[in-house]
Amino acid sequence: MKYLYVEKGGITSPQGFTAGSAQASIKKPGRYDLTMIYSKTAAAGAGVFTQNKFKAAPVQVSMKHLEDGKARGFIVNSGCANACTGDQGYKDAVKMAEAMGLVVGCPGEEILVSSTGVIGAYLPMEKVLNGIEAAGKDLSEKGGSTAALAIMTTDTYPKEIALQLELDGKTITIGAMAKGSGMIHPNMATMLGFITTDAAVSPGCLKEALLEANQDSFNMITVDGDTSTNDMLLVLANGMAGNDIISDREEPSYLAFKEALREVCIQLAVLMARDGEGATKLMEVQVVGASTDNDARLAARSIAGSNLVKTALYGEDANWGRIICALGYSGAEFDPSRVDVYLGGLKVAENGGGRPFDEEEARKILQEKSVIIKVDLKQGERMAKAWGCDLSYDYVKINADYRT
Amino acid sequence: MKYLYVEKGGITSPQGFTAGSAQASIKKPGRYDLTMIYSKTAAAGAGVFTQNKFKAAPVQVSMKHLEDGKARGFIVNSGCANACTGDQGYKDAVKMAEAMGLVVGCPGEEILVSSTGVIGAYLPMEKVLNGIEAAGKDLSEKGGSTAALAIMTTDTYPKEIALQLELDGKTITIGAMAKGSGMIHPNMATMLGFITTDAAVSPGCLKEALLEANQDSFNMITVDGDTSTNDMLLVLANGMAGNDIISDREEPSYLAFKEALREVCIQLAVLMARDGEGATKLMEVQVVGASTDNDARLAARSIAGSNLVKTALYGEDANWGRIICALGYSGAEFDPSRVDVYLGGLKVAENGGGRPFDEEEARKILQEKSVIIKVDLKQGERMAKAWGCDLSYDYVKINADYRT
Repeated sequence: MKYLYVEKGGITSPQGFTAGSAQASIKKPGRYDLTMIYSKTAAAGAGVFTQNKFKAAPVQVSMKHLEDGKARGFIVNSGCANACTGDQGYKDAVKMAEAMGLVVGCPGEEILVSSTGVIGAYLPMEKVLNGIEAAGKDLSEKGGSTAALAIMTTDTYPKEIALQLELDGKTITIGAMAKGSGMIHPNMATMLGFITTDAAVSPGCLKEALLEANQDSFNMITVDGDTSTNDMLLVLANGMAGNDIISDREEPSYLAFKEALREVCIQLAVLMARDGEGATKLMEVQVVGASTDNDARLAARSIAGSNLVKTALYGEDANWGRIICALGYSGAEFDPSRVDVYLGGLKVAENGGGRPFDEEEARKILQEKSVIIKVDLKQGERMAKAWGCDLSYDYVKINADYRT
Repeated sequence: MKYLYVEKGGITSPQGFTAGSAQASIKKPGRYDLTMIYSKTAAAGAGVFTQNKFKAAPVQVSMKHLEDGKARGFIVNSGCANACTGDQGYKDAVKMAEAMGLVVGCPGEEILVSSTGVIGAYLPMEKVLNGIEAAGKDLSEKGGSTAALAIMTTDTYPKEIALQLELDGKTITIGAMAKGSGMIHPNMATMLGFITTDAAVSPGCLKEALLEANQDSFNMITVDGDTSTNDMLLVLANGMAGNDIISDREEPSYLAFKEALREVCIQLAVLMARDGEGATKLMEVQVVGASTDNDARLAARSIAGSNLVKTALYGEDANWGRIICALGYSGAEFDPSRVDVYLGGLKVAENGGGRPFDEEEARKILQEKSVIIKVDLKQGERMAKAWGCDLSYDYVKINADYRT
């Protein structure tokens, strides 16, 4: 193991971070639906945001509040996305930041806002403001797990992680939580992801590291091809670990930090893919032998996103033709007559065509909870991984009547 | 009505075309799975083919046989796609063309080959050749309906149509049949579509008209976002109607013919979308007020292809946020704050945000078998239509274990 994982670790594992949550009854009573994360000291902040043209109010506000590369906290609600809500929605998102600022004692501009839930409804601001009061009173270094619960919508389990690495003889901790499930697709920021660290990192280096980590993780998962109005991935770095500040992209400390951040993001992304709406299986697609990184990524995402591959996986059917087919329309460059396809360790297609294989062995591989699909393009040295899940009856059930 | 529709018309409605079918037991006994269409006289031919990098053997052979713009017939089988079958598959496809050529009395190079079914399996050539013999004996001017049955896979009904128009005082007939269902998505040729006409058209004009007709029809339908290795749309024009040959794209006769061909293609495309695997509803997406045709097309296809829109439609849930969301990641250019969304005639969103509407009325609209989703971008004058269907439990069921 390259990293020390913090047992039951999460968003409040790094030094100086607290979290507080509340049951604000935003959509339904009786569940945590609002949370705030706060750093005791000033912190660098960075974010990656959805590329959807309809950017929800909290996305717009958080982008603005990150312009100076500084932030102190996150305020997040589930149950209402505050998307497609016009000027009123924007004002509500600003008010959320200001209300948290008042509670914790910092300017509203240092708070990043995030919302998830139904599109097109206004936030019930009285409930939200009461929730912020309550969450403020709940702030604690042990608040991470409840925070991870509060950001869930159709997720079936909370997603959190924390790991540690050594830099300059200091122990650096990175903690994170995420909310995934439906509406996850590569190349739009993602879903909601929140990362905290006590490393000292300059805003520029923090942003660069986050972009790179996102590229190999959240941008490589797909649940249903739809991308949300609210997706964002945020990070705060408060420097309390006492390492020499990371401010040069050529330094070994930057590379070590970036690698660790990437690892955190990949692990959260895989948790999300596994918990895709209605998913019964995790699919990891490995594309090797590509000429370029871009070809490898295109190919891996196309296979992981194919409805026909996903349903075949659900049916535990070794239909490699669908893998080939999704590869063929991926836009990646390769020679079709050289492609090999593996299910787990079993080669099921060779040089672009079928080959005899043990159907029973294939079925056993497909019956596992995690299935690896490997494609060798035999063109070059580049590779990429993408993650997805199967498409089940329950996906349809969950999404056929989400609003009610 | 602009055109006279031929009652129970299809692929053999135009003069000089015969069809013959056989039960060749290619996948299962007891159903028609092989058919041939033949023109008594020499004909111009044109085709549009899948853009998937894995082009099945019949696609490769048909593209080659169309290089000279001439063809006399189609040979089509269901039950086996002859895709990813390498040299052997290519030889088998050539052999199919030659065998039909022998039966009807023309060179194999004038026959276009088409296959649909499972990828990666070799054709059972003895059965296929016996089937070609039998189909040859079955050739008749009344063979169109059985031919439309023989090309079906998971289709729930045959898709055929014929219409007539007047050119130079002559009656021109266009007949067609298609096979759709799963694996249908825009911008790859499509599915299998076969068109015959007794119009006299030059190969160049025929190809141009087919490309344009395809653009507004088969390229605007989507069932599951996957595109096949075998998709093709073929047309033969044998000139037996006796019109002056259409050979100039500026002539009114070319425009009239092109319009009629487009109408045939749109009607078949809509039949296909309605019969998407597991579909319970047809969705027509109309995007109006776009700045460019391309923006309108991108937007319409993105909405029609969204799994979240499709499941909401299945659930009869007026979740306009998902429509907005799919529009937002479509790549179309527009101002999000100007967009209006309608379900049928009911405006459910205005200027990019929600507005009060009668949920009961919305539900009634969504309960219909055909639902129109209209989006007004309010940017310009261009528009496009796309067609799709809902995503149901049955889609998952059909595709979870297709091979067995």
